[in-house]
Amino acid sequence: MSVTAPLGFRAAGVSAGIKPGRARDLALVVNDGPNRAAAGVFTANRVKAAPVLWSQQVLAGGRLRAVVLNSGGANACTGPEGFQDTHATAEKVAALLEDSAGEVAVCSTGLIGERLPMDELLAGVETAAAQLARDGGLAAADAIRTTDTVSKISFKRGGADEDGAYMVGGMAKGAGMLAPALATMLCVITTDAELTGDELDVVLRSATAVTFDRLDTDGCMSTNDTVLLMSSGASGVRPDLDEFEQKVTEVCADLARQLLVDAEGASKAIAIEVVGAAGEDDAVKVGRAVARSTLLKCAIHGEDPNWGRVLAAVGTTDAEFEPDRLNVAINGIWICRGGAVGDDRDKVDMSPRDVTITIDLSAGPHTATVHTTDLTAAYVHENSAYSS
Amino acid sequence: MSVTAPLGFRAAGVSAGIKPGRARDLALVVNDGPNRAAAGVFTANRVKAAPVLWSQQVLAGGRLRAVVLNSGGANACTGPEGFQDTHATAEKVAALLEDSAGEVAVCSTGLIGERLPMDELLAGVETAAAQLARDGGLAAADAIRTTDTVSKISFKRGGADEDGAYMVGGMAKGAGMLAPALATMLCVITTDAELTGDELDVVLRSATAVTFDRLDTDGCMSTNDTVLLMSSGASGVRPDLDEFEQKVTEVCADLARQLLVDAEGASKAIAIEVVGAAGEDDAVKVGRAVARSTLLKCAIHGEDPNWGRVLAAVGTTDAEFEPDRLNVAINGIWICRGGAVGDDRDKVDMSPRDVTITIDLSAGPHTATVHTTDLTAAYVHENSAYSS
Repeated sequence: MSVTAPLGFRAAGVSAGIKPGRARDLALVVNDGPNRAAAGVFTANRVKAAPVLWSQQVLAGGRLRAVVLNSGGANACTGPEGFQDTHATAEKVAALLEDSAGEVAVCSTGLIGERLPMDELLAGVETAAAQLARDGGLAAADAIRTTDTVSKISFKRGGADEDGAYMVGGMAKGAGMLAPALATMLCVITTDAELTGDELDVVLRSATAVTFDRLDTDGCMSTNDTVLLMSSGASGVRPDLDEFEQKVTEVCADLARQLLVDAEGASKAIAIEVVGAAGEDDAVKVGRAVARSTLLKCAIHGEDPNWGRVLAAVGTTDAEFEPDRLNVAINGIWICRGGAVGDDRDKVDMSPRDVTITIDLSAGPHTATVHTTDLTAAYVHENSAYSS
Repeated sequence: MSVTAPLGFRAAGVSAGIKPGRARDLALVVNDGPNRAAAGVFTANRVKAAPVLWSQQVLAGGRLRAVVLNSGGANACTGPEGFQDTHATAEKVAALLEDSAGEVAVCSTGLIGERLPMDELLAGVETAAAQLARDGGLAAADAIRTTDTVSKISFKRGGADEDGAYMVGGMAKGAGMLAPALATMLCVITTDAELTGDELDVVLRSATAVTFDRLDTDGCMSTNDTVLLMSSGASGVRPDLDEFEQKVTEVCADLARQLLVDAEGASKAIAIEVVGAAGEDDAVKVGRAVARSTLLKCAIHGEDPNWGRVLAAVGTTDAEFEPDRLNVAINGIWICRGGAVGDDRDKVDMSPRDVTITIDLSAGPHTATVHTTDLTAAYVHENSAYSS
């Protein structure tokens, strides 16, 4: 179902020949309305790919007729020519839809620093436009994969009853997290509920802040990350805004979880749950520092409940805490109490794929959870061999 | 030669039984004067091991009679009992030297979260005190190793002629860098030149700022890092302060280089040379961000001159630069010019162990170099298996 679960959307995923072989590498998602309100969030990296620079301008208008996405090349660090390539792609989509390029977003993912094969890409856009269909969501989700081993899709129903019901659907790609430098995260979320661009913007920022923004598999931030939210209004339903935000957050969380499980080379999904923080910012800061400790990630890979590496990472932050009041549990066993040895570490069962590290800062009532993965030889292998 | 290269110092390195087997694990370095001015720099981690908390207090006095160091246990996150253990160790050294514990520093390295075996340790201190010798520097350097495959020592001669000559000697351990959470860096530097504690403090801070502080092998910061500088004044030479600072910096740089080459699992030594920065801070910030990109470190391991991952890391900083004015050379070939593709990447020879990545921010005259290593399956293996 993916992005075509909501009414008013058609999609396609085709093989344009950007990637070697016959794999799908180009996706098109079109909003047939009646509305076309939209919002987007983009990478915070200051080195932004051409499609990000383009799509940020487009989304400033708060409207989107279509988004075209390609895998097989990030079109990042490609200079003015790369930007022209993105522009030409949007113009091609616009011409085929007899619409304005100013309402066509572009997303790219793949290697940095190489121009896209524009002849193949533009021909692929024609093929995709011809194949646009109400059931094209799965093919589109397949076409945006790079090192992703599976397609990531999600959908949720909102609204009280038959008449007031609406859908939220989504697709994503990313074999790392919000921000791996190559395995960029792209995500398109659609809804047939009726909302304004401003409403979508608020909802999207809130939803991504507690989902994609709290995934941190390798601390690397992409040049291409893009999350788009498009509304067709085709259900004719004006949703309750709180409920709608909850549905979009659920779709984002579901997709984020799929990204985490499929992260490059990962064998463990690690939830870092920070409690007792003086503020939510502190909790996120601590969670992120722990998620980025390569030593801890190696230990978890080795099924070693190494709380010392947790404390060492917490100690690098400026969050509010006293070292001798820190408590750490791994999979429910409080193996560090008061900054020193706690319960018996042999009681910790490290065998499940899911590992939860709970860090109690003993400094207040706030909490946050950051998700990461372990660091494995497979990650090193995959990222040593990527472009050569 | 190591720490006993300068006059006025004796040292010993013995097996106390803290580590399994018969490996040396306890070192003692004693300053016989006539002076005992000293300075220290310590980890910035807020979770500090007991010996760091103790030695910081001791060094506040600017004087040091001796330093006792153990491998086999970090004595970090061990609560008030751990601090008492450190205190007892200093008292033992003081009693044997008939001196004050308030001028005895303590350093520990090894696993976090476990108490030290104090009976063995205190007996080892006695053995070490009995073995103190003018040629004990090598044994001391050997005794502080953990996962270090070799001892790290260095010495330089300063002063103009025979009469005005003085020595600077040093030893270090650390299988990562200033700050791997377990493979803590410890370093003791000695000199027979005559200086005050304040002078030593200024020199040590300047020297470490451009050497150990610019090593970043895995971004992890230890709970135990300690660098000490001790002056005996036994040469009777008042050195030229600028020259002395240069000599201490050379010893630190030499030891830092040895740490880098011996870093856990590393197969490449990577120098990240940032030029054209608006300020030295910007240059260091950019160098550190690039040094911490696990994706880039994997690429270098795979001998892939992946400048896209360099730019993606630069883009995460708030340093002054324009993305389309960034230039990147790897081993002398400018493969990225103006933020886009530059010279032919096939010209880059990635086969040497030493890899230099030059990043031109085109924003000013300042430069800095940060040193790191590649990320390898061997690193993952070593750090997955460390404590289990």
